[in-house]
Amino acid sequence: MVKCNPNYGKLAAGYLFPEIGRRVKAFTTGNPGVKVMRLGVGDTTQPLEPSIVKAMHAAVDGLSREDTYSGYGDEQGNAALRAAIAAWYGERGVTVEGGEVFVSDGAKCDSANIASIFASDSVVAVQDPAYPVYVDSNVIAGRTASFKDGRYEGLVYLPCTEENGFVPSPPSGKVDLIYLCSPNNPTGAVATREQLAEFVEYARANGAVIIFDAAYSFFITDSSLPRSIYEIPGAAECAIELSSFSKFAGFTGVRLGWSVVPKALKGDGCGDGGLNALWNRRQCTMFNGASNVAQAGGLAALSPEGREECGKTIEYYMENARVIREGLSSLGFKAYGGVNAPFAWVKTPGVGSWEFFDKLLNECRVVCTPGAGFGPCGEGFVRFSAFGRRENVQAAVASIRENLKL
Amino acid sequence: MVKCNPNYGKLAAGYLFPEIGRRVKAFTTGNPGVKVMRLGVGDTTQPLEPSIVKAMHAAVDGLSREDTYSGYGDEQGNAALRAAIAAWYGERGVTVEGGEVFVSDGAKCDSANIASIFASDSVVAVQDPAYPVYVDSNVIAGRTASFKDGRYEGLVYLPCTEENGFVPSPPSGKVDLIYLCSPNNPTGAVATREQLAEFVEYARANGAVIIFDAAYSFFITDSSLPRSIYEIPGAAECAIELSSFSKFAGFTGVRLGWSVVPKALKGDGCGDGGLNALWNRRQCTMFNGASNVAQAGGLAALSPEGREECGKTIEYYMENARVIREGLSSLGFKAYGGVNAPFAWVKTPGVGSWEFFDKLLNECRVVCTPGAGFGPCGEGFVRFSAFGRRENVQAAVASIRENLKL
Repeated sequence: MVKCNPNYGKLAAGYLFPEIGRRVKAFTTGNPGVKVMRLGVGDTTQPLEPSIVKAMHAAVDGLSREDTYSGYGDEQGNAALRAAIAAWYGERGVTVEGGEVFVSDGAKCDSANIASIFASDSVVAVQDPAYPVYVDSNVIAGRTASFKDGRYEGLVYLPCTEENGFVPSPPSGKVDLIYLCSPNNPTGAVATREQLAEFVEYARANGAVIIFDAAYSFFITDSSLPRSIYEIPGAAECAIELSSFSKFAGFTGVRLGWSVVPKALKGDGCGDGGLNALWNRRQCTMFNGASNVAQAGGLAALSPEGREECGKTIEYYMENARVIREGLSSLGFKAYGGVNAPFAWVKTPGVGSWEFFDKLLNECRVVCTPGAGFGPCGEGFVRFSAFGRRENVQAAVASIRENLKL
Repeated sequence: MVKCNPNYGKLAAGYLFPEIGRRVKAFTTGNPGVKVMRLGVGDTTQPLEPSIVKAMHAAVDGLSREDTYSGYGDEQGNAALRAAIAAWYGERGVTVEGGEVFVSDGAKCDSANIASIFASDSVVAVQDPAYPVYVDSNVIAGRTASFKDGRYEGLVYLPCTEENGFVPSPPSGKVDLIYLCSPNNPTGAVATREQLAEFVEYARANGAVIIFDAAYSFFITDSSLPRSIYEIPGAAECAIELSSFSKFAGFTGVRLGWSVVPKALKGDGCGDGGLNALWNRRQCTMFNGASNVAQAGGLAALSPEGREECGKTIEYYMENARVIREGLSSLGFKAYGGVNAPFAWVKTPGVGSWEFFDKLLNECRVVCTPGAGFGPCGEGFVRFSAFGRRENVQAAVASIRENLKL
């Protein structure tokens, strides 16, 4: 019989969000007609902006006519979109060329695939808690040993705790790859310029590469906080950045993201083209470009009109974040994040995070995300997502106020 | 310095199509204003069908309104589309459940990713010539040794020659994975029921898994030829099928495909859920679903109206295939395929396939695809794609007739 990839057997449990889905389904099946308020999965709820809708309709119309139909696009994304993304970096004072931008069908895929250009024995560091895809993709790739006492052996965990404000220091030992996410999913913490500079310094000193997930950077309003790791001098020589249209433009279902792999980024054994050429080869071989309709929408999202429209929706979500953060704080919870990030990270009152998840679901009909699902240091916390309809968010906070039995 | 995945260094050359792109670009740069006729890349040229366009517009409109907006879909694809694909198999007399269908952003990605659920020391067999993604993805995954005398050591090649009608017999030794493509890219050969049954018998006897690429099955008009490997009894216990909306519905740029992983398909070390559960876990962890707008279009393509419309476009392309096949035959070339497949496979007149590619480009301004780019047994052949505008195809054949110096 054919042998399966044995690394799948190491995965500790079902992927977090399907597990939440199963529990919610069990609740709704057992309580027919009861409405559940979902603040769990960070899924957008506000409609696409008018300028984006217009561009997507135009793209579909273009495909409907002989003279404007187009088939395969470049695997790396269409040149105008790559240039627009590069220009967005230019506004931050950062030089990124279009040829360093790779358009994809979303940051989840890029997060999962990016490590495949590195050696299989690379030592990987992740923030704890972290987006599960960073961990699981490396487990599947065989970069860890077995799961033991809540952690994968062979993986370096960087604890994010109340004490360090949920932003860790660089590893004490030598690692090859470091996944950093800022604004952070799940904690909502945002790394300062100084904190990122420490990581850049570490990476350059140790020949490590930072995989910087900036999918939530559009939610930063404090102008002193970096929105791209390339705002830190030297980062182009040690960092890959991933980003997404999912959250800032409502593309969770439309699917569009990008990675930046600077040409200055070198690696042992990848030749003169460096990691940029290697990722280009990976994408050309194993990917066929993002949907042309999605790319047309993405280009509109980055236009001045699109950005203004998206900015209002971001404000809407951030007001939700305020409602959650302040509402829970007023009930005596310790609530973190939710200021320059669309997630609030809330300390559970003396119970485990899955237990608190079940309490909130059963007593209050509110779905959150158990912090333990993001790593052992997430135990004792739950994540609330600010993506949602205002009335739903307000009703959820009110229901917690009225129904939670503490 | 960080170590790169050393397997990239084994890849013999740039991915075939970018190499063709480079040569064509060099020609057009050197010959400004000269129009090139492209019969190389199998890229669709006919506009999307009206019912598909209507469905995609409706999907975009749905995303523009609060009450109909949707975010993340299921990683496996939306249930209605999975059911419609399953129903398509039902019409062939084959039982496939919706839960066995995984919607993706295209068969290229599925082709490249599917092997990742198998052990890294799996022995892989490919047809020679073959779609380069099957080979390159396994090279990158480390399942081969180095490239030597035109072949990767460790890979089992199944020669497709004039003698066997370009459909090989099963391997003589034991392998774990067999990539089969029928209708074949690049040769245009279609395996008969009996030929596929031999592979199914081999796979069941040897505990191997067939990865059956059926991306061109909609081009089969001869009803005696199988359009799915599941038409062969026992195939559900030994075969994964990949397919695509790219060619039959013009989705090369829209991006939509699917894989079928039967629940009856078991593997060593993947537990009771079998390979279906393993691929489900892979997709949930590393993929976030195909674009919702593309999926809406795909559902329309499978509707009775959509199928009728797509059927006419398929006829259009197949008339192109006839023009190419008969045109080249009348010039004395040996032309294969192009009957139940959108590719003609043409024997080059005593020159190598890249040499003939260059001759056709420089003398006739026609772009084909060198057979050698698909594997050593492709040497001495070139592939012509039937995707194109009729007038372009006719002009290409006329130009070959007038300008080729033999």
